[in-house]
Amino acid sequence: MENIKEKLLNGNKRAAARLITLAENGDPQAANIIKDLYAKSGNAFVIGVTGPPGAGKSTLTDKLVKAIRLKNKKVGVIAVDPTSPFTGGAILGDRVRMSDLNTDSGVFIRSMGARGNLGGISEATGIATDILDIFGCDYIFIETVGVGQSEIDIVKSCDTTLMVMVPGLGDDIQALKAGIMEIGDIFVVNKADRDGARKTAREIGAMLSYKTSDWTPPVIMAEAVNSEGINEIIESILNHKTYMKTSGSGMNRRIENKKNELLSIVREKIHKKLLEKTHDDKLLELLSKEVVERKNNPYSAVETILNRLNIK
Amino acid sequence: MENIKEKLLNGNKRAAARLITLAENGDPQAANIIKDLYAKSGNAFVIGVTGPPGAGKSTLTDKLVKAIRLKNKKVGVIAVDPTSPFTGGAILGDRVRMSDLNTDSGVFIRSMGARGNLGGISEATGIATDILDIFGCDYIFIETVGVGQSEIDIVKSCDTTLMVMVPGLGDDIQALKAGIMEIGDIFVVNKADRDGARKTAREIGAMLSYKTSDWTPPVIMAEAVNSEGINEIIESILNHKTYMKTSGSGMNRRIENKKNELLSIVREKIHKKLLEKTHDDKLLELLSKEVVERKNNPYSAVETILNRLNIK
Repeated sequence: MENIKEKLLNGNKRAAARLITLAENGDPQAANIIKDLYAKSGNAFVIGVTGPPGAGKSTLTDKLVKAIRLKNKKVGVIAVDPTSPFTGGAILGDRVRMSDLNTDSGVFIRSMGARGNLGGISEATGIATDILDIFGCDYIFIETVGVGQSEIDIVKSCDTTLMVMVPGLGDDIQALKAGIMEIGDIFVVNKADRDGARKTAREIGAMLSYKTSDWTPPVIMAEAVNSEGINEIIESILNHKTYMKTSGSGMNRRIENKKNELLSIVREKIHKKLLEKTHDDKLLELLSKEVVERKNNPYSAVETILNRLNIK
Repeated sequence: MENIKEKLLNGNKRAAARLITLAENGDPQAANIIKDLYAKSGNAFVIGVTGPPGAGKSTLTDKLVKAIRLKNKKVGVIAVDPTSPFTGGAILGDRVRMSDLNTDSGVFIRSMGARGNLGGISEATGIATDILDIFGCDYIFIETVGVGQSEIDIVKSCDTTLMVMVPGLGDDIQALKAGIMEIGDIFVVNKADRDGARKTAREIGAMLSYKTSDWTPPVIMAEAVNSEGINEIIESILNHKTYMKTSGSGMNRRIENKKNELLSIVREKIHKKLLEKTHDDKLLELLSKEVVERKNNPYSAVETILNRLNIK
């Protein structure tokens, strides 16, 4: 273990990968290493990349990483897969194998797979971010399909969030925009060669005009496949980084995010206890059967469980 | 309140709507009414309708409801909106106003809006389902965009799940399929007049061939807008209903679902306690600030919170 610690600080990618795996598996030694080294973290700037399926997030992220690498910065990429409870990771696939960036010693790529049904994706992502931060990454990209509460939680935990939109994904997607306006710091209309790209950009701009924060999110047209718009996006990221620092918003956001992260870890720990204490003697099974047979009702059943947990 | 109870049992739609609102707001009187009447529930057959944005779920649900109404059965529709924590309900919009079914006294439509950040959508949906069940609905449709953990949880809690797919939504959606194969009892390829519909159906069929359950999910081509395929879907729903009853799978599934529902309600209750106990004296704020400033680490902070909750 001391070995991993040293290797991690020396920039050994395998050591970072191993430590993430150990931490994901709840290994207490991994937790101890992170505890020990935690004071060395906090330097990475974390960028969330999200948007609907098919928006081209992976390609865009790859291009952004390449552009940042030209500045000789160390970069981490975490690809979070929302379907993982069922598939072990299907939407984004294995980013490690998919990206040609993986041979670059200054780039670390990780796919976050199945974390079970415990809503543990946020915790796993948080730990991986901390490890990559300790590992010395200057920038960490967290890529996720922007749907569902846990994905939104992850994206909200970043320093900057890129919302990647795409023209012509139908009415539902148009409606979805309203929901994600609040969490985007920079908007990208990718696949901008498609019909309706300008219209999409205009609509986003119109919605953003209602925002009351000091930071007005830019709306950038891009064609990630052809590397178009990449430099402009990088510039916006750096502008936002400066804004976050000088305005003090960055610190406030990090504290807010940390609150949510701590709460979510606590919730998961309690959930594990809950499962232990109700499975042992089949209390949960029994109560559920009673409720389904209408010999009991959900309210009384919940009270019974809370009493068992000694929570009042 | 006695008044609501009586009106509910007499099939008054306003009473049902009012009780759902009261229950959503955590009104203890509402909980008491549901407790009292819970034994009258359990007769409704609950059908989940899910799929990616733009698959035409709302139109399909409306057509299915109309078809079932011809059999003179009472129907409930609950539209769950996953973006609600931010928007108060944006993707599916207000289904009550959107549907012409609303003037039919045998149809009850409800949009589930913002339930805050507590993951409370499942609980709210569960309560609404119970109330519509008591209200006397023979069939209840729960419509949701099939993305994200809480939406999947909701769909898993149904007696039958319709997975609505659509041709040509791009590679990500194709990949998504693998994740949702497990929870679909009936697959619908909607907008079947579009290019690639047969290919999509074939691909779904190929994936399903690996399923090992006694029930082989049918794959049905439909054009909901033109009412094509509706009767076939209804027939499949009724077949699945019969299968669930005769095989005993239905009872087992309901018990499994009830377990998850109870756990999720318990989790939410604990979460509320957690917020109370850590907000009072700004413990959470303080710990988060310490962690961000690297004067503390997440692991130790979480232990402090768990101790405060007296959970070991």
